[in-house]
Amino acid sequence: MNSEYLLALNDLNNQNPDYIETLFALCNGHVGVRASSILKGKTTKGNPGTFINGFYDTHPIVYGEWAYGYAKNHQTIVKLPDIRSLIIEIDGEKSTEADWRTTQTDFQLNMKTGMLEERYEIETLHGKIFSLSLCSFLSYSQAEVSVFHYTIEALNFSGELLITKQIAFQEGNTNEDGTIDPRVASSKSKLGIVPLNDEWIEVKTEFSEQSVLLSQVMQTADGVDEIGGLAVSKRVFVQKNQAVTLTNYVVLSNPLTTESRKIEREKDKLTTVKRHLEFNQLAKEHIQHFSEFWQASDIEITGDPILQKGIRFNLFHLYQNAGRDGLTNFAAKGLTGEGYEGHYFWDTEMYILPFFIYTQPKIAKQLLTYRVSILPKAQERAKEMAQNSGALFAWRTINGEEASAYYPAGTAQVHINADIAYAFQLYERVTGDHQFIAESGAEVIFETARFWLNYGSWIGNEFCINGVTGPDEYTALVNNNYYTNKMAQNNLSYAVTLAQRLNSVKEAEWSTWQQAAEGMKLPYDHEKQLIKQDDTFFEKAKWPFEETPKENYPLLLHYHPMIIYKHQVCKQADALLAEMLFPQDYSVEQIQRDYQFYEEVTTHDSSLSRSIFSILASRTKQQDKAYSYFMDTALMDLTDLQGNAKDGIHAANMGGSWLSIIYGFAGLSSTGQTIQLENHLPKEIEGLAFKLNIHGTLVKVKMDKKELKVTLLESNEQLSIKQLSENKAMIAIN
Amino acid sequence: MNSEYLLALNDLNNQNPDYIETLFALCNGHVGVRASSILKGKTTKGNPGTFINGFYDTHPIVYGEWAYGYAKNHQTIVKLPDIRSLIIEIDGEKSTEADWRTTQTDFQLNMKTGMLEERYEIETLHGKIFSLSLCSFLSYSQAEVSVFHYTIEALNFSGELLITKQIAFQEGNTNEDGTIDPRVASSKSKLGIVPLNDEWIEVKTEFSEQSVLLSQVMQTADGVDEIGGLAVSKRVFVQKNQAVTLTNYVVLSNPLTTESRKIEREKDKLTTVKRHLEFNQLAKEHIQHFSEFWQASDIEITGDPILQKGIRFNLFHLYQNAGRDGLTNFAAKGLTGEGYEGHYFWDTEMYILPFFIYTQPKIAKQLLTYRVSILPKAQERAKEMAQNSGALFAWRTINGEEASAYYPAGTAQVHINADIAYAFQLYERVTGDHQFIAESGAEVIFETARFWLNYGSWIGNEFCINGVTGPDEYTALVNNNYYTNKMAQNNLSYAVTLAQRLNSVKEAEWSTWQQAAEGMKLPYDHEKQLIKQDDTFFEKAKWPFEETPKENYPLLLHYHPMIIYKHQVCKQADALLAEMLFPQDYSVEQIQRDYQFYEEVTTHDSSLSRSIFSILASRTKQQDKAYSYFMDTALMDLTDLQGNAKDGIHAANMGGSWLSIIYGFAGLSSTGQTIQLENHLPKEIEGLAFKLNIHGTLVKVKMDKKELKVTLLESNEQLSIKQLSENKAMIAIN
Repeated sequence: MNSEYLLALNDLNNQNPDYIETLFALCNGHVGVRASSILKGKTTKGNPGTFINGFYDTHPIVYGEWAYGYAKNHQTIVKLPDIRSLIIEIDGEKSTEADWRTTQTDFQLNMKTGMLEERYEIETLHGKIFSLSLCSFLSYSQAEVSVFHYTIEALNFSGELLITKQIAFQEGNTNEDGTIDPRVASSKSKLGIVPLNDEWIEVKTEFSEQSVLLSQVMQTADGVDEIGGLAVSKRVFVQKNQAVTLTNYVVLSNPLTTESRKIEREKDKLTTVKRHLEFNQLAKEHIQHFSEFWQASDIEITGDPILQKGIRFNLFHLYQNAGRDGLTNFAAKGLTGEGYEGHYFWDTEMYILPFFIYTQPKIAKQLLTYRVSILPKAQERAKEMAQNSGALFAWRTINGEEASAYYPAGTAQVHINADIAYAFQLYERVTGDHQFIAESGAEVIFETARFWLNYGSWIGNEFCINGVTGPDEYTALVNNNYYTNKMAQNNLSYAVTLAQRLNSVKEAEWSTWQQAAEGMKLPYDHEKQLIKQDDTFFEKAKWPFEETPKENYPLLLHYHPMIIYKHQVCKQADALLAEMLFPQDYSVEQIQRDYQFYEEVTTHDSSLSRSIFSILASRTKQQDKAYSYFMDTALMDLTDLQGNAKDGIHAANMGGSWLSIIYGFAGLSSTGQTIQLENHLPKEIEGLAFKLNIHGTLVKVKMDKKELKVTLLESNEQLSIKQLSENKAMIAIN
Repeated sequence: MNSEYLLALNDLNNQNPDYIETLFALCNGHVGVRASSILKGKTTKGNPGTFINGFYDTHPIVYGEWAYGYAKNHQTIVKLPDIRSLIIEIDGEKSTEADWRTTQTDFQLNMKTGMLEERYEIETLHGKIFSLSLCSFLSYSQAEVSVFHYTIEALNFSGELLITKQIAFQEGNTNEDGTIDPRVASSKSKLGIVPLNDEWIEVKTEFSEQSVLLSQVMQTADGVDEIGGLAVSKRVFVQKNQAVTLTNYVVLSNPLTTESRKIEREKDKLTTVKRHLEFNQLAKEHIQHFSEFWQASDIEITGDPILQKGIRFNLFHLYQNAGRDGLTNFAAKGLTGEGYEGHYFWDTEMYILPFFIYTQPKIAKQLLTYRVSILPKAQERAKEMAQNSGALFAWRTINGEEASAYYPAGTAQVHINADIAYAFQLYERVTGDHQFIAESGAEVIFETARFWLNYGSWIGNEFCINGVTGPDEYTALVNNNYYTNKMAQNNLSYAVTLAQRLNSVKEAEWSTWQQAAEGMKLPYDHEKQLIKQDDTFFEKAKWPFEETPKENYPLLLHYHPMIIYKHQVCKQADALLAEMLFPQDYSVEQIQRDYQFYEEVTTHDSSLSRSIFSILASRTKQQDKAYSYFMDTALMDLTDLQGNAKDGIHAANMGGSWLSIIYGFAGLSSTGQTIQLENHLPKEIEGLAFKLNIHGTLVKVKMDKKELKVTLLESNEQLSIKQLSENKAMIAIN
């Protein structure tokens, strides 16, 4: 098998347990399990945990000084205890009480199959040595089922072992000095454990009124299944040098499908599932599932095995962390950690969804369906924000309610509305799924358009959107953030298109959207010939970069927000992101000028920044920069670039690496009825091949230093490929 | 005696106990005692309390989302229990346990003497009726001593009474729904009560490491003094229709003079004070003290006894609530309540100090000395805010550290620096006390000037101060707030003057201050011919006043800050305040235009607003408006205009009423070496007379509808009066 699908411990420099836990975490969109030590002794380090998408608890946000309309409650993803670990008892010695010596550890994540293989060699205090292996995967055919297949082999003894699988509880995550790093989770939840019967327990949150059902099955060679809730035990006899196996299934229900408290029905359904668990069958389905995934979504890189592995690692995590039930989304850290409290941000729409839209449209649809599901909450929020109509999506949320406790870098980022609209539009353009848009998406587009019309104002003959924060969180509460206005304009125009096509909005209304779109203020400095990040960005002093020591980055951890905001300094691409998204609206010269200016004042303190700089560098033929920005972050988590992968993967950055390759190196841009591709392959990469799913049809793109070729893998009358030159092609959609 | 010095219960419409407690509160700059019920039964209502200036506790500010440089700790003035109340026991019935019927209550605050007289008629459950009177005052000659002189007369019985004076403890102040009104105190402090001996207890805060000493004396006709800490008791025999008297002294030390834990020395000092307490002597000194106060600070109004009383009420509270020890200042609510947590704001410098500077310069000096005492904290804060040098005073504080938990309407109001500098400058100009400035004030002026140079930036050829909030808290984090820049310019210029005069700063440095002052950006719209509140104020939509129901004011309690900030709407005078302070820099036409524009967009949701509008209306000959704005707030607390006088007086508004009269009706303005006066008496007021203390000399100003006359009451070679016309005079300082 291709070793570029395998991730082993020695691929990593950082060997800290909590980092390893994130990197090797397995997820299936519903459940995520951190790869913590299987045998936990008294001094075992790490931050183990199991997360369920959409399973959160809530508690009131405390403000030093309260104001009207502030977000009311924190939402924090529930950290369930580890569901991987075993307790082994030999000769009265218990693994949890004695710190047994682990003499060998091997981890191998097989990204091709979505399975994690581990092997440990362990010596007890009495000198008994045995090996313990685990093959685990989280089922995609039965999302509620996590599968753990253990193998134990006694190496210098024969004897009886008592093996217990038990779910134990543990605490949250606070900095030592009591202050909370805004990028880490900020709360703890006490869970209520309610035994329902011998087989099931219900895990209840303290305040959010959510619960999940939990049950376990343990299968051994004797054919007698142990079934239980918090704990199951088996006594097994091991013969020296003979392996015994043990399969454990942990079943965790979806808290959102049991929200109406139909616990009994769910329990019965899952009990039926449990009765038919069969390892080989589940494994076969799983391998097949992942094979199909790679078939559609792989990026093949020639000549750089490390990069190849890194990119596959990113695609793997993107795939396994996406919510798939239409009720959940993609947390900033996926289901691999509790960073950012498990919240969903614009990261999904602007950094992650393009990958799914272009290669896994069914998942893309589910992620968008989540936004449809929280539209009523967004409508309520718009009312709280004194808007007569329309919807304002929460900047960060799980359940749809605003959970941002610092509004200048939260609620004020109203661009989230247009980001969501943009994603629906891209989905429609690439998939041709007009039905979904007509039935579900259009209302989101109309309601967000209504928000812009309410929130913005005609000032003079320009439509202005004042008092907002753009993507760049180092500049807050400004008038006419370029990105926001450009995106709002697009939102309004798309709404007009849909309103006309679907004939579902009166002309009296959509014509006001059209006027606002046409009159939208897009700040531009005619003297400097630069687009302005906002009305006053050029009226500030440049950040004193020369006087800023390296250790003072990221700035947000070393300077008061006031000091940051009053300077020309960007955390990330902001105005440039607009140019990246709408390439047809800007000349290459314009982008070059803006690039040069904004690059100088951008710290890239956000992991969302470099991919955009890479793409625009590709498009402006700065291939060294394109490659260098790309490589800075393509391996972000594999190299622990930001030092905080222990809190979970940087999912948006992973999406960004896909964007850098596809939008950047392969120059993909989509406008209207065409998708253009252009070869911008940097000299360091020999060749590149990937597939796109356009209107249900797989298209293969292959490029090397000499040419870029696009091939239709299936016939589709709607699509035609035009090879415009050696390095340029177009997919036309009829 | 003049009834316009007397405030009685029936002068007030609102008879709620907690309102009465504020209105009749007695203070002496060191201690403040709310006038709560003397006999507290089980169901007695109200919010009793005793406050000591500068005595606060602290606890960490919790932020929903933390950021670097945020204020770390709340500071909250300690609410000590009431020190007025008695416990009386008759026939085994105890006043605290039985709810005795109070059949009559009289309150009379004699502002002429600073004494409060009360009389109650009370009936016990057994039908025993007695009257209880209290004459109380807080000594100004011995600030640590509060004096309570009780008289009890049995009206239908003779018998024995057990009278106990006991200090009991009680809880804080939170809204019912758990949210905190930002204008009310937000914390509770547990106090430690440590008995030191039979005579003294030490009251210790939980976290701030402050403590005060408390002792009591009870004197009765038998000549035997009871001395104790928390409680003293006396058994007295009352004969029907014969009054018995009882004098109680409560001694409370200054927590700031015992800060170095020299508790023993302070205790010995105060024990000596206690040994010599003598009611008649203390009363005599007190009356004499208040006589001198009114002699210097009274405003006599002819023809409107209600207004006369209201103004005296304001002057009385201003006088009694000012810190006088150079270590304390003037809390936003004085010592009459716990509103705004007992914090000191710019209110002191801009609304309260003019009254003291012009009529009580010694107190003015003490209030300014407080700022000198916290300069080291302001220097530390500037460092935290990434400034290499200079000082940034806390927006709200007791101990000098920033205690604002919402920086956009707190720390960002950096104009506090220039406000303080302005007050020193006005003090020097009016008192001629150059020595104080040279020895103490100059360093404050230099350090604040250094802050402006650091914090501001040369952008093009203008000196800009970006990312700040002006006085108008409905517009936040803007560039070049007009008021801030104008005041900073004045701060810098004054610093240059002092640097040159005192020869204590190198020219290389002060010349940079001079350049910044000269290059200061003062936003002006040349087309509209209006001064701009900030760079972008005119680029916002006007607040939809027509669509805003009356009950939605104050806006801050009904709209999210984002919604407020993005509109043209002012909580209070902002740019206009600059015009009020520097009348020589603006033509009357300019002020008229600005007035008309800003008046339309100002809600006056701040109690600091109307006085400024009144003054500018006087100066622009809009006498109806001048009178109407003045009358809206001259009686603010007497009529409970804002409905929250229960939390304490609106001290800045009281200072504002003095300003409206002196700066407005009497047209006082001071520039350079002259003080000008001009008659703007509104038609509703017959006549006005007041005194000013200019360079140590009393000057009398008397005006009526026909003329304004200024007389020197003592000779002073430095001063000369020029009567410029019937209604205009000038005091020239040589």
